[in-house]
Amino acid sequence: MAFQFDTETQLTEQSPGEWSLTLSDQWNIGDNPNGGYLLAPLLRGLSTLSPHNDPLSVTAHYLRPGSGNASALAHGSLVRSGRNISTLRGSLEQAEKTRVEVLAAFGTLGAGSDQAPQVSIPAPEIPGPDQCRSRSGLEQGVELAIQNRIEMRIHPDQAEAGAAEKAETSGWIRFLDGRQPDPLGLVLFADAFPPPIFGLLGKIGWVPTIELTVHIRRLPAPGWVQGEFVTEDLHDGRMIESGRLWDSTGALVAQSRQLAMLLTPEG
Amino acid sequence: MAFQFDTETQLTEQSPGEWSLTLSDQWNIGDNPNGGYLLAPLLRGLSTLSPHNDPLSVTAHYLRPGSGNASALAHGSLVRSGRNISTLRGSLEQAEKTRVEVLAAFGTLGAGSDQAPQVSIPAPEIPGPDQCRSRSGLEQGVELAIQNRIEMRIHPDQAEAGAAEKAETSGWIRFLDGRQPDPLGLVLFADAFPPPIFGLLGKIGWVPTIELTVHIRRLPAPGWVQGEFVTEDLHDGRMIESGRLWDSTGALVAQSRQLAMLLTPEG
Repeated sequence: MAFQFDTETQLTEQSPGEWSLTLSDQWNIGDNPNGGYLLAPLLRGLSTLSPHNDPLSVTAHYLRPGSGNASALAHGSLVRSGRNISTLRGSLEQAEKTRVEVLAAFGTLGAGSDQAPQVSIPAPEIPGPDQCRSRSGLEQGVELAIQNRIEMRIHPDQAEAGAAEKAETSGWIRFLDGRQPDPLGLVLFADAFPPPIFGLLGKIGWVPTIELTVHIRRLPAPGWVQGEFVTEDLHDGRMIESGRLWDSTGALVAQSRQLAMLLTPEG
Repeated sequence: MAFQFDTETQLTEQSPGEWSLTLSDQWNIGDNPNGGYLLAPLLRGLSTLSPHNDPLSVTAHYLRPGSGNASALAHGSLVRSGRNISTLRGSLEQAEKTRVEVLAAFGTLGAGSDQAPQVSIPAPEIPGPDQCRSRSGLEQGVELAIQNRIEMRIHPDQAEAGAAEKAETSGWIRFLDGRQPDPLGLVLFADAFPPPIFGLLGKIGWVPTIELTVHIRRLPAPGWVQGEFVTEDLHDGRMIESGRLWDSTGALVAQSRQLAMLLTPEG
């Protein structure tokens, strides 16, 4: 069976390091594709240039919003390939304008020895998916087409905007069509939860990402992925959002951090 | 008065977007310059290409160690300049090999309204600089030439490697010659403290940075800068180190995160 996330991030090679594709509008939040979705085809292209398969560190700068239901070009190049790490650069372009610029390190997940020292962050205890609330397909007049592709459950204490004491979002996420999580899926999930700042301040504006860095830490086990996202630092209209994802066994599988703008109607 | 950090990160323009320089060996940790020091001349060059002065988000991938007391070339280009944010790309090269690859967003610090909502992380209470311990110029046979340039004081409870219950380093940092902190100095300071993993596991190996992202949050006030660095996530021989810097007024001025390898002699 072909899963939506795979068919809708497919590439056609045009020349070495250049691919054409069509972005779907089914991963949109409002008028534009989710930032994590924009990265998936680009990372797929980069992985074909790299002797190492797994994205370990992905930094994306969002220069302009992307457009769903529209063609795109992905460009990539291998900056350096070392024994353990390959470094790659890439960009995603639509209508002759760069939308996303990426710098990434690829390596091999799961190749470490079990004897090596480990430190980890346990998954916080939250109500299970069935005790959490579904995110509706519409928020404040903004249509969330992405709800046609991913299923998300939000902690019942955080489901009301502006009601929380701190800027935190936690819950569960998975693909709607039964596709299991993998590193590309984790990059998507790291940018898919509602901005935690909405929990504290209400839905006071629009939160465009300037830069997102995702660190993939482990190959995820099948099942729901648990997420926790916090904003502890908002200043000058810009904020840092830090996130963590755990797989269904409770293992930490990704960490993320993004710098975003908080654009309020008052300016 | 010319300060060491400024004279030792000076550039000579060769052509638009290309600069020559000489790296000093006085910022070395062991045989190689500190990673934050390598970024300073490159960011200086990038800032001349940007209509926005201040680095807001800097991601550096370390492809190969740099060499002190040796010439280098810095390359940079403006990817996009928007109203609030400019995105730039750059690299630092020595002996015809790329050492560092950078993707950065520049903007304007301090331009926000005081009426806008704010969330912040207060500086943790730790003993003052005079109650902390100086870092010695030599650690396990590794010479820390950087101690000729920056003064660092480590929390007395953390000054012994392997004695701590968690992987945390906190303390104070400033330039030795009286230069006051600024965004470039904060990028340096974000990569200058001893790896927190040493506190937990002892100095068990070498910790090369794969990727470092620094977010500068405010223009720092003069005086000591307080730092706190933690590693909560070590797996497969790779770890995430997260850091925060506060200025002498207690304001959060930078956050950092890096992915590093832990290379132990046993392999």
